[in-house]
Amino acid sequence: MTETTPQRTASRADAAPAHAAPARRVDDATVEQAVRRALELAALGPVTGGNPQVGCVLLDAEGRTVAEGWHHGAGTPHAEIDALSKLPVPHDARGLTAIVTLEPCNHTGRTGPCSEALIAAGVARVVYAVADPGANSSGGGARLREAGVEVDGGVLEAEAEFFLRRWLTAVRRGRPWVTVKWASTLDGRAAAADGTSQWITGPAARQRVHEQRSASDAILVGTGTVLADDPSLTARGDGGELLAAQPMPVVIGETAVPADAVLRSHPRGLIETGTRDLAAVLADLDARGLRRVYVEGGPTLASAIIAAGYADEYLVYLAPALLGGEKLALGDLGIRTIGEARRLRVTGVEQLGDDLLITAEPAEPAEPVDPAASAAPASTTAVSTTAASTTAVPSTEEN
Amino acid sequence: MTETTPQRTASRADAAPAHAAPARRVDDATVEQAVRRALELAALGPVTGGNPQVGCVLLDAEGRTVAEGWHHGAGTPHAEIDALSKLPVPHDARGLTAIVTLEPCNHTGRTGPCSEALIAAGVARVVYAVADPGANSSGGGARLREAGVEVDGGVLEAEAEFFLRRWLTAVRRGRPWVTVKWASTLDGRAAAADGTSQWITGPAARQRVHEQRSASDAILVGTGTVLADDPSLTARGDGGELLAAQPMPVVIGETAVPADAVLRSHPRGLIETGTRDLAAVLADLDARGLRRVYVEGGPTLASAIIAAGYADEYLVYLAPALLGGEKLALGDLGIRTIGEARRLRVTGVEQLGDDLLITAEPAEPAEPVDPAASAAPASTTAVSTTAASTTAVPSTEEN
Ligand SMILES: NC(=O)c1ccc[n+]([C@@H]2O[C@H](COP(=O)([O-])OP(=O)(O)OC[C@H]3O[C@@H](n4cnc5c(N)ncnc54)[C@H](OP(=O)(O)O)[C@@H]3O)[C@@H](O)[C@H]2O)c1
Ligand SMILES: NC(=O)c1ccc[n+]([C@@H]2O[C@H](COP(=O)([O-])OP(=O)(O)OC[C@H]3O[C@@H](n4cnc5c(N)ncnc54)[C@H](OP(=O)(O)O)[C@@H]3O)[C@@H](O)[C@H]2O)c1
Repeated sequence: MTETTPQRTASRADAAPAHAAPARRVDDATVEQAVRRALELAALGPVTGGNPQVGCVLLDAEGRTVAEGWHHGAGTPHAEIDALSKLPVPHDARGLTAIVTLEPCNHTGRTGPCSEALIAAGVARVVYAVADPGANSSGGGARLREAGVEVDGGVLEAEAEFFLRRWLTAVRRGRPWVTVKWASTLDGRAAAADGTSQWITGPAARQRVHEQRSASDAILVGTGTVLADDPSLTARGDGGELLAAQPMPVVIGETAVPADAVLRSHPRGLIETGTRDLAAVLADLDARGLRRVYVEGGPTLASAIIAAGYADEYLVYLAPALLGGEKLALGDLGIRTIGEARRLRVTGVEQLGDDLLITAEPAEPAEPVDPAASAAPASTTAVSTTAASTTAVPSTEEN
Repeated sequence: MTETTPQRTASRADAAPAHAAPARRVDDATVEQAVRRALELAALGPVTGGNPQVGCVLLDAEGRTVAEGWHHGAGTPHAEIDALSKLPVPHDARGLTAIVTLEPCNHTGRTGPCSEALIAAGVARVVYAVADPGANSSGGGARLREAGVEVDGGVLEAEAEFFLRRWLTAVRRGRPWVTVKWASTLDGRAAAADGTSQWITGPAARQRVHEQRSASDAILVGTGTVLADDPSLTARGDGGELLAAQPMPVVIGETAVPADAVLRSHPRGLIETGTRDLAAVLADLDARGLRRVYVEGGPTLASAIIAAGYADEYLVYLAPALLGGEKLALGDLGIRTIGEARRLRVTGVEQLGDDLLITAEPAEPAEPVDPAASAAPASTTAVSTTAASTTAVPSTEEN
């Protein structure tokens, strides 16, 4: 994993401070500890806004921390720049080792490339955990090596990959990370026969939903839910006050949102898609940098998203109650026989007041989806409402 | 709670050994510890067979354990007799304190009344945790007092009541304790569209079901399940071998069990009820001493039992999978609006392999049910298959 390129590129030699060879190489244990610290720093940044959470620690030749930084969100300096700016002499990092959770970027966005900034600051070595998956931003490691900086990639890669997996998955697939949430009784009902559902779950579960909204870039609902419930889809605190971070509400379906809908006064505005084409909607959201979407239903939209294979994560709030009847939390998924069941892996079970929150992910992670290629199945399978066959085939579950 | 009757009934004075007043009264802490031990002993007995699990410890005047006993099941000696028979001089308990988890019985069943046996053995004091709820068997405490024995009831009553609650509830209500079990996907489906359900849950969950069968007096299934699945309803071990304790299979419904049904070779025999009248069926099972029944479905029978208010305990096996479609684990429960939801209290969540087992009980324990009085609703509400109204009433769950 370690690859050193001793030759310096002459062109930058005079612009950058001299790269003093480190008195000694910081040992592996210290480096790993610094990566862990950088992950902690990364977690201080926002999960929304489209950019990854990244942390950076600058170590001297003895392995002592000289400065720390993290990315505070889109439009603000990257973690490396944040750390460089906190040095005793800002941006003078001669002989230092930069520890970063994500490979330094190599492209000029709202901020310049971090690779060039690190070179200019004179760092002797860069260690990163996960390679940058971005088509435009990757190549920072190679650029640093080219400039004579020692570069180690892949240190604590698994931890960092897990930490950043929602963002990484979104970037790799070219579509947002899709969390599907629903609330149901233990028997899978989302409402009583007359449509009433207030309140299936209790205050602790509802509060958690508001926190999850606040940690999302967008909330997706179908036109059916807008017409039936006239929801506000804001993220609110215990006292009903608006939280600082608000998700963008997105209404999916052909029906227009009524002129007097409460949603029209949402603080983030409103995206009306006017279409049922999920692939097109997700591609559009991705283009807007809305990388984390939170699907709040209703049952028709949630089922369509699951059937199309877009659900990356499931948050199932189970209320300790039974309702029976026909108001199901999920409808048809296009599954005919048991072998086609959508298998999940439970990643968490949490008690929230009287309710349970079950967190799950697909047992087999979905293949990277090319939204263009999957547009057809997404808008046909998804919309399917064919009644399930009632042919009785003997089954012997636990006989 | 302590009530001493110093006068002896003259009529038994010569029949019984002399009641030597204890050198000293065993202190409360020692008594409580002995009740805890007696509960442990009680747990060694079988949960099935219709009789309660009861334990007994005999203490000398210094609080030392002289003998221990427990009830090994219907037709064998009661816990008190078991303990008395293990004394250095069997049945000579002069001056001893008998600690029993349940009030000694006062009636002659397959064994004589324990009250008389304790008097005859010369015990000086009897401490019990829970009063005997049986109409024919209660009165043991009063009989002992009448004979001059010091009697303390209600020691660690809450613990013992909880330990025996299934049996106590059954005796108090005059109907079996009803456990309703089903296996479903996270979205509440019991089978795929084509009826296949093998295997929704994995081996660990299925093995647990066999253990639960073995700990039941009867398994109830509807005729629909018998016709669809031709189940064996035996309790089997890991290797497929029959477990020692087998539940009685009971088929509910008007349809006859086919002559060649696998159920007809069940080791316990077979009860065909020929009726949908749940109250009548439960009364019949109670009369047969089948106090713990395990309802294995299908969806129609389970829903009818829940709708009629007979479910004392729910065991919901949730497989981490989604199926969608129309094969629901529960059907209609006769609930129209959210306020009528059947509220439960989750008593446990357990991971079994990849599956979850959620254990729950009614949030408000059902009123003692008089099977005669509830016969009408049980057989009308229960059978109801009226389609739920689809009137859209706005609801605002988490808006
Ligand atoms: N318990 C919960 O978690 C929960 C959450 C939300 C809502 N609900 C309840 O659910 C009820 C509404 O249910 P619903 O299923 O009608 O609402 P929905 O899923 O919000 O909306 C369904 C509509 O979405 C549109 N749509 C967009 N993309 C689609 C696609 N790919 N496939 C199919 N349809 C698509 C269609 O309308 P167009 O004709 O406009 O295209 C469709 O009729 C409300 O009563 C609400 O209270 C419950
Ligand atoms: N996932 C699971 O946990 C599970 C468990 C068991 C079965 N299953 C599946 O469920 C399917 C069978 O479903 P099902 O609902 O038809 O089976 P069911 O509940 O076993 O049987 C329904 C029948 O029971 C009779 N019945 C008795 N008492 C009744 C009452 N009080 N109210 C209404 N009906 C009463 C009726 O038949 P009569 O006309 O004879 O009176 C009724 O048609 C099978 O495919 C099986 O594989 C799944």
